[in-house]
Amino acid sequence: MSDVRQILSMNRFAGEVPDADASDLADRLRRRRATFGSSSVLFYERPIEMIRGQGAYLFDHGGRRYLDFYNNVPSVGHCHPKVVEAISHQAAQLNIHTRYLVRPVEDYAERLLATFPAPLTNLVMTCTGSESNDLALRIAESATGAKGFVVTRAAYHGNTAAVTEISPSLLRMRAPAAHIRTISAPDVADAPDGDVAASFSRAITAAASELSEAGVGFAGLIVDTIFSSDGIHADPPGFLQAAAMAVKKAGGVFIADEVQPGFGRTGAGLWGFARHGMLPDIVTMGKPMGNGFPMGGVVTRPDLLDTFCDSTGYFNTFGGNPVAAAAGLAVLKVIEEEGLVVNAATIGSILLEKLRELGKKYTRIGAVRGAGLFIGVDLVDPGSGAPSPGTASQVINSLKERSILVGAAGLHGNTLKIRPPLCVGEQEVALFAEGLNDVLQAI
Amino acid sequence: MSDVRQILSMNRFAGEVPDADASDLADRLRRRRATFGSSSVLFYERPIEMIRGQGAYLFDHGGRRYLDFYNNVPSVGHCHPKVVEAISHQAAQLNIHTRYLVRPVEDYAERLLATFPAPLTNLVMTCTGSESNDLALRIAESATGAKGFVVTRAAYHGNTAAVTEISPSLLRMRAPAAHIRTISAPDVADAPDGDVAASFSRAITAAASELSEAGVGFAGLIVDTIFSSDGIHADPPGFLQAAAMAVKKAGGVFIADEVQPGFGRTGAGLWGFARHGMLPDIVTMGKPMGNGFPMGGVVTRPDLLDTFCDSTGYFNTFGGNPVAAAAGLAVLKVIEEEGLVVNAATIGSILLEKLRELGKKYTRIGAVRGAGLFIGVDLVDPGSGAPSPGTASQVINSLKERSILVGAAGLHGNTLKIRPPLCVGEQEVALFAEGLNDVLQAI
Repeated sequence: MSDVRQILSMNRFAGEVPDADASDLADRLRRRRATFGSSSVLFYERPIEMIRGQGAYLFDHGGRRYLDFYNNVPSVGHCHPKVVEAISHQAAQLNIHTRYLVRPVEDYAERLLATFPAPLTNLVMTCTGSESNDLALRIAESATGAKGFVVTRAAYHGNTAAVTEISPSLLRMRAPAAHIRTISAPDVADAPDGDVAASFSRAITAAASELSEAGVGFAGLIVDTIFSSDGIHADPPGFLQAAAMAVKKAGGVFIADEVQPGFGRTGAGLWGFARHGMLPDIVTMGKPMGNGFPMGGVVTRPDLLDTFCDSTGYFNTFGGNPVAAAAGLAVLKVIEEEGLVVNAATIGSILLEKLRELGKKYTRIGAVRGAGLFIGVDLVDPGSGAPSPGTASQVINSLKERSILVGAAGLHGNTLKIRPPLCVGEQEVALFAEGLNDVLQAI
Repeated sequence: MSDVRQILSMNRFAGEVPDADASDLADRLRRRRATFGSSSVLFYERPIEMIRGQGAYLFDHGGRRYLDFYNNVPSVGHCHPKVVEAISHQAAQLNIHTRYLVRPVEDYAERLLATFPAPLTNLVMTCTGSESNDLALRIAESATGAKGFVVTRAAYHGNTAAVTEISPSLLRMRAPAAHIRTISAPDVADAPDGDVAASFSRAITAAASELSEAGVGFAGLIVDTIFSSDGIHADPPGFLQAAAMAVKKAGGVFIADEVQPGFGRTGAGLWGFARHGMLPDIVTMGKPMGNGFPMGGVVTRPDLLDTFCDSTGYFNTFGGNPVAAAAGLAVLKVIEEEGLVVNAATIGSILLEKLRELGKKYTRIGAVRGAGLFIGVDLVDPGSGAPSPGTASQVINSLKERSILVGAAGLHGNTLKIRPPLCVGEQEVALFAEGLNDVLQAI
């Protein structure tokens, strides 16, 4: 578990403020500790106070501008005026639940569902990715009569009680529960003959068998389709087809967690699963869905939803409220009008190329992986090539000193997690690559 | 279980639209069924399309105005301009998570926590009441090392997997899980010698013992402090003190679910537990917290939060975003500036009086219960006095024809659930009482 604990402590403010420190920052930190208590987690050795966001930039209280290559929620750009306008307009008009007919909600449902392949025609709206995954697990359970799930070793799927169990990256002091089996992330570098499709699907089959033999049964596989917290594993496109076949053969349900890759980030259509040319049984959404307005959703087939609704009621008070629908509709329109999927592909490949060039220049860079505007850069010990979370932490904090924001991911916490908003251009990519080059040179 | 199923089917559109019906409404209903599938639940025999809300009123697509005595989320009034302004302003400025310092979030936390008694000094922000209760259960489990919870028979606490288990009103086809014990709602009419404090606390003690003997242990009691879905049980104020003592004696944690009574609805301060003069270990919030902006929260003691955070990480991406904080801050300010707690008490007692007068006039009315602007009116068979969910359904649909919105609650689904926004005045109360009188006269 120590590797996983490492991720949790990565890039985290230690939380100690000397009594003698009378600075404004120290005062703010003490007040925050007094209110949020031990649940308060702040980024960076010296936390930042943010006051404004615009496009790809955040501004701190001193007016300093940060290039945001980290935050994947404001995916069409911080405070996008069309999303803000949609929220403001609808909030002044009507904000109510789905037990009345409300046109913006129905329009949104139809527009969103039109982006999914044919059998996925039903939508349940929630407020968060966590609620979406929590519901998806139960739909899978009711469809299969089984309780067991297979997840990747450093997976993160959210924060409810049920979803924490399928998120090994959150479990500090204990092994996963008895109904969970973990498998290695689909890292092409670790796969025999580089055949990640074969090794990943073999692992699924073996884990599913274990669950069946243990008596809990195999309800399904849930994966983030770009394996964000496992360190970003995207290639080769198509490797999830074999995984889907393995899941089906073992009698389970395939849940595609699109909370991070969804809404165009991979540059290959709106959905990470589509990049692999496969069809999940259930798709879950969250984070960028409303560009920061709290909303999530589950898309599935009517037969699966019917079975679940026959046994359990589900209603979400805020889920599908018209303000969320207006925000979500604006996000879909902006993605289309501004050509953000194509931009993610085009600018993403320029960024990937620049990072691979840096990889050739610096022995501290190991593998560089990703798709569209979601890229992982492994930082390693230059001698042994071993994962170096310490270097990742140093790079993250040094980049911040150069006004650039990134984070870390992966089982060892040594993968730089690079996720700018989908609206960035070549200028931002150049700024970022220059900053990273400077930081690596200075180490 | 049939009684509980009755609640679920109360005031629910049957969902059948004849193929031959080519009306606009029929078309809308078919489209909605096509997108939301079997999760689509609409109110009323003939559903309403809403397009606008203002103060205590909702407006349908034909311009018809409905007096809203049902919806308890837009608690300071539909689309309150100060809340809308706060949301619009902050959404244009910055919308980010709590891993940076963000002043509106810290200001909100301090202002909210100032309304709680001293030992309750820590806040965790979530997005929904469901997420709040899901987290509260885990805090109670980590504090006690036990897994068992006691809940009331028709309780509703939310929609996650874990919270559905403590919400018997949602379980259609099965008995509660092995770690749950249900007890009768604290109905003063059913208590021996009318001593509801004694009977309710005895039931808690017995259920806690059962859980201990069953080996799961007693983690705590969770109750909505006005027992909304159990039919609204508010009196006598103070009866929850004995319950709290029983919970403590049995080694459990008292979770006060303030999702429905909270933020002033009972007219006796902001919190339902305060009306009982007792101190919970954990308080959960949701629905009216942002007047419709999706937000929730958990308030507890630092010792309990520390124990939980030592074993499990908790982070909520949208929880505590600055737009939610701005909405929440505006709600607290409006409650104070407009004197809404006092209004809930004053107007609530006028409403209660009028309903009790109707109770004397109509034998179809049984008990009338409530506090502030949350009142339950039992509808019964005039001959036998038995619960009459059919009459409740008839009254709800007839009131809707008179442009008044209410709902139903209670184990038998025969309790009118009356919850206007806290900003209503004598005029709205008169309109409502007149409408209810007309409807009862016509039956």
